[in-house]
Amino acid sequence: MKTISLGLIGFGTIGSGVVKLLQDSGALIEKRLGARLVLKKIADLDIKTPRVVSVKKNVLTTDAQAVLNDPDIGIVIELMGGYEPARSFILRAMKNGKHVVTANKALLATHGDEIFRAAEKAGVNIGFEASVGGTIPVIKTLKESLVANRIKSIFGILNGTSNYIMTKMTDEGKPFDEVLKEAQALGFAEADPTFDIEGVDAAHKLAITLSLAYGKRVKFDDLYREGISEISQQDIEFARELGYRIKLLAIAIRHDNNVEARLHPTMIPHDHLLASVGSNFNAFHITGDASDSVFLYGQGAGMMPTASAVMSDVVDISREMLKGVSGLVPARSLREAIIEDIKLMPFDEIETNYYFRFSAVDQPGVLSKISGILGKNNISIASVIQKGRKQGGGAVPVVMTTHRAKERDVRCALGEIDQLDIVQAKTVLIRIEDHTF
Amino acid sequence: MKTISLGLIGFGTIGSGVVKLLQDSGALIEKRLGARLVLKKIADLDIKTPRVVSVKKNVLTTDAQAVLNDPDIGIVIELMGGYEPARSFILRAMKNGKHVVTANKALLATHGDEIFRAAEKAGVNIGFEASVGGTIPVIKTLKESLVANRIKSIFGILNGTSNYIMTKMTDEGKPFDEVLKEAQALGFAEADPTFDIEGVDAAHKLAITLSLAYGKRVKFDDLYREGISEISQQDIEFARELGYRIKLLAIAIRHDNNVEARLHPTMIPHDHLLASVGSNFNAFHITGDASDSVFLYGQGAGMMPTASAVMSDVVDISREMLKGVSGLVPARSLREAIIEDIKLMPFDEIETNYYFRFSAVDQPGVLSKISGILGKNNISIASVIQKGRKQGGGAVPVVMTTHRAKERDVRCALGEIDQLDIVQAKTVLIRIEDHTF
Repeated sequence: MKTISLGLIGFGTIGSGVVKLLQDSGALIEKRLGARLVLKKIADLDIKTPRVVSVKKNVLTTDAQAVLNDPDIGIVIELMGGYEPARSFILRAMKNGKHVVTANKALLATHGDEIFRAAEKAGVNIGFEASVGGTIPVIKTLKESLVANRIKSIFGILNGTSNYIMTKMTDEGKPFDEVLKEAQALGFAEADPTFDIEGVDAAHKLAITLSLAYGKRVKFDDLYREGISEISQQDIEFARELGYRIKLLAIAIRHDNNVEARLHPTMIPHDHLLASVGSNFNAFHITGDASDSVFLYGQGAGMMPTASAVMSDVVDISREMLKGVSGLVPARSLREAIIEDIKLMPFDEIETNYYFRFSAVDQPGVLSKISGILGKNNISIASVIQKGRKQGGGAVPVVMTTHRAKERDVRCALGEIDQLDIVQAKTVLIRIEDHTF
Repeated sequence: MKTISLGLIGFGTIGSGVVKLLQDSGALIEKRLGARLVLKKIADLDIKTPRVVSVKKNVLTTDAQAVLNDPDIGIVIELMGGYEPARSFILRAMKNGKHVVTANKALLATHGDEIFRAAEKAGVNIGFEASVGGTIPVIKTLKESLVANRIKSIFGILNGTSNYIMTKMTDEGKPFDEVLKEAQALGFAEADPTFDIEGVDAAHKLAITLSLAYGKRVKFDDLYREGISEISQQDIEFARELGYRIKLLAIAIRHDNNVEARLHPTMIPHDHLLASVGSNFNAFHITGDASDSVFLYGQGAGMMPTASAVMSDVVDISREMLKGVSGLVPARSLREAIIEDIKLMPFDEIETNYYFRFSAVDQPGVLSKISGILGKNNISIASVIQKGRKQGGGAVPVVMTTHRAKERDVRCALGEIDQLDIVQAKTVLIRIEDHTF
């Protein structure tokens, strides 16, 4: 029986999951692969603290170079996360002719171009199924299963923490701060939750997804991004009344000359499959020109689900190694030499439906003034909800949804409306998607 | 630019879709593959009737042998369907060293063993992603993405026609016969719908899915199978009242020593993802021991979605050909030499929850008699619905759901109950799944 030696850098939660998976299911993988996977070295700065798995002492090292320079090791699994030294380690591994598997979305979203080019130059594979959607096979689906498709659109729930919070807020009527604290106590949210709730993590994954879907280079900073920290119970309730649920949605829509890409809280029809994605699950609704809708759902994070995705990459690469080949599927679905920059639609040119919640003084003529400004800016109103009057003339919520409108017009109109004396707080804007599914 | 020559046998709907996809998206596929796919020959008995695509006359032939014996052709795409001569053609293509791509689930479910072994013997690939779940990448997911998982369970909606009918019956309250006629008029059901509505087609796909999930040989005739033709509006309504929807569900559950596999109308919780799979869509809810739940959804049939899946196989195989290798992933995820027969759980040993609708005479003591027989057979009642009494003492429906019970006990109890004078028609039995998701 042939063996393939692996090296692991980063013995944290996911790293421990990979070790556990090899221990628990090594025999099964061996039967399917026709070779034995041997984890030869594990590098981590901390090799003292006990993990959920135990490994032989001589496997552990605090020196990543010992993994990177071991001539036996064919595949390096990078699970330390962060930008540096992960980036340098990956580039070094490739220079040394080693294939790389990583779950590092932050790194790939920002330095992916350098890393993918280095892989092609070195003639090695880079597997990163675990970096987007955890256990969901979205990378493989985009690069292999939908290879004959122009991707028309992708709508995705790409961050488990924010989806957990939105689900709890919706199902249990609790405010954002309380749910966040619960999520932190349960380990679903980090002590510093910024990356998750402000959409940074999801936007990283959107950047990677876009680059595969369109075979293009994507600059992370060019993507429009809004988090969920401003979402209130009031808006969740109005959404329900209008037949929607609010999700932090990553959106990519292909146009004739460019691609619209954005990430923000979005109202979607309550009976759409994406609206049923609860708890900390992730999902992708992908539409190809031949395939029609494909919907993929699963755990976007977690020790064993992520380890399962890491191991699928390891086995894919091992299969090629056993045949003496590499690079069957290019990292970004095209040879790096012909990859171009993506052409993103400027954000103020996007068109969609909108939800506005105005904080208006409760007096005659308010509706007419607001709708007048909307009309002047080419925004046509689809529905209005105005609830009972407040005693004493305080502000009342006036909710409007619009027909398809341009972002630029909306910004312009709201700028004007928020200056009105009769409007007492910044207008809440949530985009609606129901025409594109 | 290298070229790879393809031969197509069967120029029907899916065959036309493949031709159209190559015409519409050939340039895109070429960029992703790094080679040109050329459809050199198309064989069909009917080369006169115009198709949705037009092809050069010299490409068409009525002689399948011209495809099978053409030394240029590297991949034969079999889309004629049926058992013979499809089987012989595939075996001949393999003997001639050609890779094969097929969507022929009936053939693979019944003669798969012979065909998969022939592929391994000839050292060629067989791609069959399109045979199960159409455009849904379920074969690739089971063989590659979940390679490090023991599959704990699969729950699937595998037949678009029957799902269309069940969805329409549920949403519009129409009877089976009427919806079937509509489906036939719309082209969603065949003139002879037996294969679809009696579960034969779905069971074919279950057999193939099982063989991949467990790397085992599965005998199609050993699978328990029930269709949807007996489902009435009354049961759909009671299901709704109980919080369920009825779907024709393919079920596979792994036990310590064997696998439980069955296909029948099933009540599932109305808020489960599978319950939202409407119209003619297909879906798979797969649980791996590491991956946790993975849910895949898409078009299970249709010209372009199926062609998209066929083409993904063609490209996968082409990638191997370009590197001069084959057989990276064994057809059934294990080398054929080590594949064993699956050990199926005898159907009367399965345990699940049950729904019974008794047609009982409306008189005192009925409930007590029925529940007495159930109790004697170790069947514990979870809920009872007995609606208002009928004038004149005719039969009224008495609905019961059970806690987990054994199929054998259920059969025994119903056999006894249906003999009672107070029971006026055969009891309706529908299995419920809500403990396994």
